[in-house]
Amino acid sequence: MSKIKTVAVVGGTHGNEFSGIYLLRKWQQSAALARDSFSVETVFANPKAHNDNKRYVDHDLNRQFSLADLANNELASYEQSRAKAINQQIGPKGDAKVDFIIDLHNTTSNMGPSLILLQSDRFNRQLGAYVKMHMPNAVIVLEDHTSVEQHHFLSSIAPLGVIVEIGPQPQSVIRQDVLDWMDEMTQHILDFVHLYNTDELLPLIPSYEAFRYHETLSLPLDEQGQRIGMVHRSVQDNDFEPLHSGDPIFTLFDGSEVFWKGDYEAFPHFINEAAYYDNNLAMSLAKKVQISTLD
Amino acid sequence: MSKIKTVAVVGGTHGNEFSGIYLLRKWQQSAALARDSFSVETVFANPKAHNDNKRYVDHDLNRQFSLADLANNELASYEQSRAKAINQQIGPKGDAKVDFIIDLHNTTSNMGPSLILLQSDRFNRQLGAYVKMHMPNAVIVLEDHTSVEQHHFLSSIAPLGVIVEIGPQPQSVIRQDVLDWMDEMTQHILDFVHLYNTDELLPLIPSYEAFRYHETLSLPLDEQGQRIGMVHRSVQDNDFEPLHSGDPIFTLFDGSEVFWKGDYEAFPHFINEAAYYDNNLAMSLAKKVQISTLD
Repeated sequence: MSKIKTVAVVGGTHGNEFSGIYLLRKWQQSAALARDSFSVETVFANPKAHNDNKRYVDHDLNRQFSLADLANNELASYEQSRAKAINQQIGPKGDAKVDFIIDLHNTTSNMGPSLILLQSDRFNRQLGAYVKMHMPNAVIVLEDHTSVEQHHFLSSIAPLGVIVEIGPQPQSVIRQDVLDWMDEMTQHILDFVHLYNTDELLPLIPSYEAFRYHETLSLPLDEQGQRIGMVHRSVQDNDFEPLHSGDPIFTLFDGSEVFWKGDYEAFPHFINEAAYYDNNLAMSLAKKVQISTLD
Repeated sequence: MSKIKTVAVVGGTHGNEFSGIYLLRKWQQSAALARDSFSVETVFANPKAHNDNKRYVDHDLNRQFSLADLANNELASYEQSRAKAINQQIGPKGDAKVDFIIDLHNTTSNMGPSLILLQSDRFNRQLGAYVKMHMPNAVIVLEDHTSVEQHHFLSSIAPLGVIVEIGPQPQSVIRQDVLDWMDEMTQHILDFVHLYNTDELLPLIPSYEAFRYHETLSLPLDEQGQRIGMVHRSVQDNDFEPLHSGDPIFTLFDGSEVFWKGDYEAFPHFINEAAYYDNNLAMSLAKKVQISTLD
């Protein structure tokens, strides 16, 4: 793979996820993002949603980057237009000006400092190893079930893109621990890209634990689509802790419990994420995997 | 004081504080709120804000209940109109149909199950004692620095009113632990009112610890009103833990620390509450007090 010449660091893709927005402001006061072997551009993705103190104005911006939607001029809501403008600025997807995108997100879930990789090629596997080695509490999540081209995420504009996803942080709040984790993880990623570019990468751990996305669970609903239950207290806050068949997963408002019936050891994450309000999702489930950096 | 004949239990005064809204739905399926000595009415205060998944549509509903504002027909925003409708339904303030209001709120701060009393008369002091006795992790907060008539809160419509304030819970999330705490505290309050009405109150603890609101601190801002810092990591989540002069209180985005210069032992609460986004508040400070139930 060729060198990475240009990196985009993106904050505020969701307007009420504050860490990235405030870090962009902070970094603009210094050379904290600068590395010798590539140039860095910052993008404040959704200023209007931030100004309204909302995740988005009309549509979730981080679902607007499929090739078909970017090419469809009938899609003209605020975020659909904003997606086209960002695609023009750092894309276009498929032939992008930037080689690598770091998109900064917060979650209300107790996911700690998570790095979401969208591919499992050697570069991404090595990046995960480097981040784990320098930040032992980092969690590596693989969402490589679809090709980058088919992803709808902002970070799919470039051939390489990752999502830095840090929580727990309520929407519209800045927590120092979360801000510091996001700052640290972003610096490690930029360091890795520089060492990769300059062929100075020291030997990496041969393998490490990661979590590969498998499926998404919905909250229990009645026939009218109203929620009739919530995440069970034994699951709440236990992101990346194992869940087995027969474990309680939901408590209904009538007091009864619902048990998980899966046939594998699952690792819930994005548990009770506030942004799932719209679509009544409860959590994502992953499988634990060992990632090799050797092959 | 005469008996309490009518109680209003209010949820959804802020549209993205979910516990009260879902508890109202739950309670409507059963007789959980019913007691023999008084009638109970439920009020879903701000359905439009809940539908929009926001704290409020135009103005904070829980600041619209001053006598002057309720009488001012020029004030016609959604919440200003909604305040007048609620005042007609369960008030009017000064001559209210209901004798006692329980207003259910969530906070993103780590306040646990808190009961905010707006007066320190014997009824309120005994109520606090009863709740502490039956729910030892409950925290009693006094906001009795102004008369009920002068309060702008929804619960000031009736001669007696309290705020049940439970956290930490991100906006737009239902946590089971928080829901259960709110349910339990509401039941204890209703039990107390019934025992008070029927002269069946058993002897209460002679005194207990509570926290009296003293002042509100703002976040550090620059001359343009932009935030330049955040709550210090040593204060975050430490609601109701003591703060002394010289303790770090804010971290500026440039990395420097700000120290508290107060001349008393303070007990921060509402630390980093998300709803403070609008006005850049950092936390409230209280003084610890001993409340007697004897006099």
